[in-house]
Amino acid sequence: MNFMNRTNPIGVFDSGIGGLTVVKQVASFLPSENIVYFGDTARVPYGSKSNATVIEYSIQDAKFLLKKNVKMIVVACNTASSAALNELKENFEIPVIGMIEPGARTALTKTKNGKIGVIGTYATINNKAYSKELKRLDKKINVYEKACPLFVPLAEEGLIDHKATELIAKEYLGELKELGIDTLILGCTHYPILSKVIQKVMGQKVTLIDSGTAASGIVEEYLRARDIKNPSNIQGEHKFYVSDLPAKFKEVADRFLGKPVKHIQKIDLEELIGH
Amino acid sequence: MNFMNRTNPIGVFDSGIGGLTVVKQVASFLPSENIVYFGDTARVPYGSKSNATVIEYSIQDAKFLLKKNVKMIVVACNTASSAALNELKENFEIPVIGMIEPGARTALTKTKNGKIGVIGTYATINNKAYSKELKRLDKKINVYEKACPLFVPLAEEGLIDHKATELIAKEYLGELKELGIDTLILGCTHYPILSKVIQKVMGQKVTLIDSGTAASGIVEEYLRARDIKNPSNIQGEHKFYVSDLPAKFKEVADRFLGKPVKHIQKIDLEELIGH
Repeated sequence: MNFMNRTNPIGVFDSGIGGLTVVKQVASFLPSENIVYFGDTARVPYGSKSNATVIEYSIQDAKFLLKKNVKMIVVACNTASSAALNELKENFEIPVIGMIEPGARTALTKTKNGKIGVIGTYATINNKAYSKELKRLDKKINVYEKACPLFVPLAEEGLIDHKATELIAKEYLGELKELGIDTLILGCTHYPILSKVIQKVMGQKVTLIDSGTAASGIVEEYLRARDIKNPSNIQGEHKFYVSDLPAKFKEVADRFLGKPVKHIQKIDLEELIGH
Repeated sequence: MNFMNRTNPIGVFDSGIGGLTVVKQVASFLPSENIVYFGDTARVPYGSKSNATVIEYSIQDAKFLLKKNVKMIVVACNTASSAALNELKENFEIPVIGMIEPGARTALTKTKNGKIGVIGTYATINNKAYSKELKRLDKKINVYEKACPLFVPLAEEGLIDHKATELIAKEYLGELKELGIDTLILGCTHYPILSKVIQKVMGQKVTLIDSGTAASGIVEEYLRARDIKNPSNIQGEHKFYVSDLPAKFKEVADRFLGKPVKHIQKIDLEELIGH
């Protein structure tokens, strides 16, 4: 296989549909690129699973994308990025980009008082993924982390302007606000859907960092540095694969992608596991 | 294998930890019985998955319990009960009991005005599992169903007395209340954890039906009718198996079981899938 064909798609995977917020950013930043998305909706969520399980699933997801001749892989899932990025890089020859480093780097360019907050799933927060990366990049930085597991189902339920969401956001974010952070990393690809209420609770002076947006810039850099950008001037083609197609999928997916999701295909778990 | 050994355990499975509320009821009703529980925590939740996937997973879960020589199987998951009970009964020789029929039968004995509400996951509600069963048992009954997907993560997060939970409960249950139901089936094994707030929102005149409690009575009937009750007078032994052991598991499991969960063992997904 020649992974370096410029017209080959960028592969993006996630535990479910959250990664569509990343596709939205990548597509907006790199409109000519073809994109193949895989959402592991049969096994979602990864955020409540152990590292070993997340690594196993992530390698299966990446192998599926490789069969689609992708030229690079974007791990559009913070849980998978924090648990499995090293294993993915070791197992595959093509570039693999996670959410953690781009989000951390962007946050460091934004903070003025050196106090950065990170919110995410239990898995991402327990792994201290952002905290380790931020401190690797800048030893003096202060990082405060908080798991916000209800934000995922609230985003999927579309309770974007609901009072209950605001109360839960206050519950989760109160401590970070009191600690005086000036920058908050949305360490889960679902969270940009709730950015309005998060911004309201945190106040306008706190900068929210969307890792998907941050990662899009890095994807562009990688493609340019390796000279594998798609030279086409026509709009890239986007294909979506999922391991399960539940009744509400399309409604939620459209909200996350910001436009109707077309060309969705369900694949069998057996195909994914490779038996 | 002799499935009819009276001292053999009762097998109980669920997509995750919700079924522990059923174990709690079965154990309280049948204290001498040995119980083997399997929670498919690596693939939780089932409620957002398609029927085909839920059937596939349920058969794997039941096969795992059979290896533990269970004398009957309790499907302590409404989603699996509504999607897979027939397939399970066809595939296995031992008795298989779901949540739907016991919950429906109990509700019919309680309602006075013939208006029954049902709440559950999207899968359970979309399958119209309770609605079909209630109408099969009593053609004249009026059934009103509502999916309440946020109740599961709210119960797992322990937001039992939180104002946000009450607001979300009002959002979900407002219509059922206006319709004047006098009986409400908690069609998800997580929901008994939130019964206090559900009762508050619905008012004291509405009877809540916990399918786990209802099923315990049926389990006892089955065992007696087949003469396979454990004749022992000593406290039954309870063993718990899960397909993943996330960090927060024990805390949530203890809350659901109502006492500390001991003897938890993690099994590999490979073992479950049978490859």
